[in-house]
Amino acid sequence: MIVLLKSNLDEASPEFQQTFSFLSQLPGIEVRLHQVRGAEQVLSEIYLIGSTKRLSTDEIATLPGVERVVRVSEEYRILGRHRDDRRAVGFEYNGVTFSQDTLNVFAGLCAVDSRESVEAMMTALEENGQPCTRMGAYKPRSNPYSFQGHGKTCLSYVFELAGRHGIRVIAMEITHESHLDEIRTALQETGWPTGVLIQIGTRNIQNFELLKAVGRQNDFPVLLKRGFGITLNESLNAAEYLASEGNSRVVFCLRGMKTHLGDPHRNFVDFSHVPVVKRLTRMPVGIDPSHSVGSRDRAPDGILDIMHVTSQGVAAGANLVLVDFHPDPQKALVDGPQALKREELPWFLEDVRLARECYERRHRLARSFQDTAPTPGGLTGV
Amino acid sequence: MIVLLKSNLDEASPEFQQTFSFLSQLPGIEVRLHQVRGAEQVLSEIYLIGSTKRLSTDEIATLPGVERVVRVSEEYRILGRHRDDRRAVGFEYNGVTFSQDTLNVFAGLCAVDSRESVEAMMTALEENGQPCTRMGAYKPRSNPYSFQGHGKTCLSYVFELAGRHGIRVIAMEITHESHLDEIRTALQETGWPTGVLIQIGTRNIQNFELLKAVGRQNDFPVLLKRGFGITLNESLNAAEYLASEGNSRVVFCLRGMKTHLGDPHRNFVDFSHVPVVKRLTRMPVGIDPSHSVGSRDRAPDGILDIMHVTSQGVAAGANLVLVDFHPDPQKALVDGPQALKREELPWFLEDVRLARECYERRHRLARSFQDTAPTPGGLTGV
Amino acid sequence: MIVLLKSNLDEASPEFQQTFSFLSQLPGIEVRLHQVRGAEQVLSEIYLIGSTKRLSTDEIATLPGVERVVRVSEEYRILGRHRDDRRAVGFEYNGVTFSQDTLNVFAGLCAVDSRESVEAMMTALEENGQPCTRMGAYKPRSNPYSFQGHGKTCLSYVFELAGRHGIRVIAMEITHESHLDEIRTALQETGWPTGVLIQIGTRNIQNFELLKAVGRQNDFPVLLKRGFGITLNESLNAAEYLASEGNSRVVFCLRGMKTHLGDPHRNFVDFSHVPVVKRLTRMPVGIDPSHSVGSRDRAPDGILDIMHVTSQGVAAGANLVLVDFHPDPQKALVDGPQALKREELPWFLEDVRLARECYERRHRLARSFQDTAPTPGGLTGV
Amino acid sequence: MIVLLKSNLDEASPEFQQTFSFLSQLPGIEVRLHQVRGAEQVLSEIYLIGSTKRLSTDEIATLPGVERVVRVSEEYRILGRHRDDRRAVGFEYNGVTFSQDTLNVFAGLCAVDSRESVEAMMTALEENGQPCTRMGAYKPRSNPYSFQGHGKTCLSYVFELAGRHGIRVIAMEITHESHLDEIRTALQETGWPTGVLIQIGTRNIQNFELLKAVGRQNDFPVLLKRGFGITLNESLNAAEYLASEGNSRVVFCLRGMKTHLGDPHRNFVDFSHVPVVKRLTRMPVGIDPSHSVGSRDRAPDGILDIMHVTSQGVAAGANLVLVDFHPDPQKALVDGPQALKREELPWFLEDVRLARECYERRHRLARSFQDTAPTPGGLTGV
Repeated sequence: MIVLLKSNLDEASPEFQQTFSFLSQLPGIEVRLHQVRGAEQVLSEIYLIGSTKRLSTDEIATLPGVERVVRVSEEYRILGRHRDDRRAVGFEYNGVTFSQDTLNVFAGLCAVDSRESVEAMMTALEENGQPCTRMGAYKPRSNPYSFQGHGKTCLSYVFELAGRHGIRVIAMEITHESHLDEIRTALQETGWPTGVLIQIGTRNIQNFELLKAVGRQNDFPVLLKRGFGITLNESLNAAEYLASEGNSRVVFCLRGMKTHLGDPHRNFVDFSHVPVVKRLTRMPVGIDPSHSVGSRDRAPDGILDIMHVTSQGVAAGANLVLVDFHPDPQKALVDGPQALKREELPWFLEDVRLARECYERRHRLARSFQDTAPTPGGLTGV
Repeated sequence: MIVLLKSNLDEASPEFQQTFSFLSQLPGIEVRLHQVRGAEQVLSEIYLIGSTKRLSTDEIATLPGVERVVRVSEEYRILGRHRDDRRAVGFEYNGVTFSQDTLNVFAGLCAVDSRESVEAMMTALEENGQPCTRMGAYKPRSNPYSFQGHGKTCLSYVFELAGRHGIRVIAMEITHESHLDEIRTALQETGWPTGVLIQIGTRNIQNFELLKAVGRQNDFPVLLKRGFGITLNESLNAAEYLASEGNSRVVFCLRGMKTHLGDPHRNFVDFSHVPVVKRLTRMPVGIDPSHSVGSRDRAPDGILDIMHVTSQGVAAGANLVLVDFHPDPQKALVDGPQALKREELPWFLEDVRLARECYERRHRLARSFQDTAPTPGGLTGV
Repeated sequence: MIVLLKSNLDEASPEFQQTFSFLSQLPGIEVRLHQVRGAEQVLSEIYLIGSTKRLSTDEIATLPGVERVVRVSEEYRILGRHRDDRRAVGFEYNGVTFSQDTLNVFAGLCAVDSRESVEAMMTALEENGQPCTRMGAYKPRSNPYSFQGHGKTCLSYVFELAGRHGIRVIAMEITHESHLDEIRTALQETGWPTGVLIQIGTRNIQNFELLKAVGRQNDFPVLLKRGFGITLNESLNAAEYLASEGNSRVVFCLRGMKTHLGDPHRNFVDFSHVPVVKRLTRMPVGIDPSHSVGSRDRAPDGILDIMHVTSQGVAAGANLVLVDFHPDPQKALVDGPQALKREELPWFLEDVRLARECYERRHRLARSFQDTAPTPGGLTGV
Repeated sequence: MIVLLKSNLDEASPEFQQTFSFLSQLPGIEVRLHQVRGAEQVLSEIYLIGSTKRLSTDEIATLPGVERVVRVSEEYRILGRHRDDRRAVGFEYNGVTFSQDTLNVFAGLCAVDSRESVEAMMTALEENGQPCTRMGAYKPRSNPYSFQGHGKTCLSYVFELAGRHGIRVIAMEITHESHLDEIRTALQETGWPTGVLIQIGTRNIQNFELLKAVGRQNDFPVLLKRGFGITLNESLNAAEYLASEGNSRVVFCLRGMKTHLGDPHRNFVDFSHVPVVKRLTRMPVGIDPSHSVGSRDRAPDGILDIMHVTSQGVAAGANLVLVDFHPDPQKALVDGPQALKREELPWFLEDVRLARECYERRHRLARSFQDTAPTPGGLTGV
């Protein structure tokens, strides 16, 4: 059960104190305070966890400072969509908005290999008006003897170059909670020239200790990659770990599933789940076409599979695209064969734009058939 | 190895006789004659099967009546794309063209339940200018005690109504070779008012005897549904069974794969393989969004998942859409929950049109980036 | 609902007539007569299909000639286990008993390649006291250009040699209903020197027309291979197709599932389902270690994986082992790499014997812990 | 490449210094020293990682102090089996031997819920002469709101009771590197009354930072559960992370794979891979029947599926069995439905004994067929 408090209610106020105290004394109920900082106001929500079935929402709604009470289903309490759920969807970070209505492209390097590559990539992004990028410093590799990324040694120049080229948000994977400090430190030392969207990879989707550590901080929002070998339900529960610890600024990213049924693609592309995740949760939904496809194969129409599946995700409403580029794919230390080339960036961006335009037209079309569409705010099939 | 003969070469001609006789005497080589009837001419191809590695294409090219010799890889000899392969892609049937460049929508009934339903559906199709439909008479069901379709008893009125409403091609599944005769007989008795695209379902993908029987006839082209539990390679080999027996007018249809990783969809939507099948073979590629998704769930944007995944397939170049409608889904005997409603047909068709337009723009865009695209007729990444 | 009639009740008797007539007039109920011929008597069962919930078992039990009435659950009506189900398990064919308590080994040739191979194999079987074998005449192959088996041309010598070497039952796959006639004809022409256990392969598990055709005859019992890409539930429903048409003498055979998770084995060995199938149905359960493992790899203990997984199936109670041998695996036309060698037959049989002895000891042990085991005839966990 | 040094060679000796110095100066080669402490001696191995193809094993073998040089394949360098590999298999810990020839049963609590349960369980184990157990203190749960285990608060009484009841090794899962310290501290405070086998769960199989942390310590050996959604190859590479950091005392544990193809079992039982892991690596191989099966269902023979699959693993040579018991399964906080009951322990142990006896007989049988078995120490099929 979620108790939404009136906006900007001070924790020291008697209303807050009285309500929080009352709720804390309910037997068999754990109470967690969760604060969402928006652009202009702070929203406080109190989560009641445990045997809430016998609680009366009407009674709790009469407590001082309470705006509204939402009874949530068992799953995805914080990030999920629930009946009569009018909580906000999405967030803003360092000037970039992430929601179920927006689209941001994060083109960049799968793994940072040299300052030259970073500079070349960021120059290309600036030339193409792109404020976001991906840059991998910590790389989890299946084989212990493979290149594991440059780690913290590359952070300073990555952040400096980002600032110089107008990059506002960098998606960067971490594999250990200590990397949070390393990133924070490097940002401080370089004067916070950019923002970081902390990425948690598919192999760590059920590394609950890492999820909890990232969930406990609020400096950075999170991009969580779906687990490639578990059910969607289990991956969404993993996202909920982040939120249950306090950080609900989470983008959920599809990246292909591990099964031979997807051959010859590296993974079975799962972008048909874009509308599903938007229906089940309030998270913006990203797609990673590079790791899904894993090659530069192209159809007889001359279009790369990576671009085809990107357009599939975007045409169905995806909100973020994470894609590997490299100034010289032959020399990339990780996943070179699947990287797009720097000179393909304008094509890729224009291709994405066409797919997004298609989605927007389809959305307008759906609204024009209002009688068959659900009433605003309501949801069917949940 | 494929020996393409000059067009309209008569089998009784001395050139043909001499060449065929020579090839038939090659040791360890099986010879199969394959004829492709186009709109204006008949193309004859001779397939050489066996240890062809030691044969010389140059030598065979000098035989009388030979136009060209293509050395094919082991897999998908007839339906596949091969190096320097300039054979035709696609075919025309009863006034409708099927190729890797066209798009045809087959909206209709998963299972014929009554004459009234068929009439209602076909009226709707005619009102919306649709010349194709799907109508299921023979239904393979997992449980032996479930409704198995009306079978041949419904064929006459289905075909008559089709003729009356301007339907030119009906996709219809068969589960036994005797159904071919039943369909042929019913068409004859009703004066061939329409055409039939014989559909082979996913459960019969490796029913090789059925594939061979359907491959041996040339009255009807074939729509082959991908196997939901085998690899793409194995499904494409199954298509080759049709062609190896003489019928290469085959549309290959994606319909979702059977794995829990696709939950909550009924199957794991596999439309990311549209460009893959077009790259590996010369078959037109269809999609079946209804059986893939299996529900009427919709995203918060009001658009049904079935429509979202359709747009994904079409935006990447799909050539055929097979989709379940029903005048009254509540009363459908098979798969009612996933059927679209009759009144949603205009919306669905317009949604498809927007996605197709997106594909065409994307295709033009790719051509405008010619230097990075492959040269016409060539293929990379195969 | 199943109405079991008194044994040896004549169809022409007034009791039978009266009861059958009464049941046939029940509204919304389909009636099917099913006869099970045992060694000494004929049992007649009447299946009531449809909305049987409102029928009273007590009332029907009072009809003349009725022995007992069993209300069955929706699934696996005939072959399944149901509450208070005391119907017989297993059957006898040509002197060999197949039940959930027996064990028969079917060692033989995956594909008949020559008379010499058949003779060599059968000689080895006779020397080792084996009355059963497997012999493949019709081979379904993924690739249309692969060897498809010698078909009916080899049947006569296979059956003659079987008779000469004391083989009582040959497991033989068919892929088309016409093969039933070919086998019946060849047996007649050679004087029925042996029996045939008709095998339906994994690729035809949902070829319902073939299942129905095989179910309509009672000359031969059936070995049904589990589908390698569908759920166990779906495969058991396929077995029910055989029974619903009249043939309930079915052995259900596990043969490994198709998923990369089983690598490096050719298929994911599924013999852990031996107790599951015995719990859900009354069918004897077979295992096919050769196709499951697909190689001759062996562990550091010197034992082949094929033998290890065989012992796993048998130690848990498997009732039939289908295993590929070949006098000269290098020369086998199909699946040579996985065939055991003729000289390994005594070792294999002794290894199976040790595993079977282990199962029997384990079974006795379970009975000695009676208080925790279920009461005889009862089942838990269904 | 692995350079095995003479036993008990002192690191300060001139032989060691000279050899290590030479190897360290090889260009493009990373050098890692790895020490294996056996009962009576210390073995030192130097791992050469990088482009070792151009190195000469003969040349390196002539360096002072070198016993032998083994060129290893790319994968599983330390834990794998390689040609001419005569390195030791297995290890001894706190009086218990773990190798590919031994068998140890770890019956115990999936999750510690109370001191009473722990005491009841350990009393039962002592009565049945068992020196090992499993005790879960840190539980990774898919849902963040589920019970997560008592953590460090229960360690003291678990260890004390273990010491009092003669338990020598407790398998205990950790989910964070800090748990190592908590366990070490609790052992110190209680006077090291028992040993701990650190368990890493299937969800952390690619949590490489945790693997590295556990690999860096040598106080505790490790039980690594196979990843339930990745290939066997990837899971074995994860084990190699432990070894590459210095800890090669690793037991690899099969626990069922996550796919609907294993239904109705909770996971698809994968114990057919017991011989595979023994062939590919030198690790002892464990099985976890409880999490694989996930229920107390039993076959008509009265034997629980959990016991059937256990016997399958053991009959094929498994070296460790991890199994859930509970004094009162109804009250278990985690996975109660799959727990065996305390009174079933003697039955379970006797059932395991019968299966082990079967394996030993099968092993003797294989040796008696020596001519077909591989020569001692050699391996085929790798």
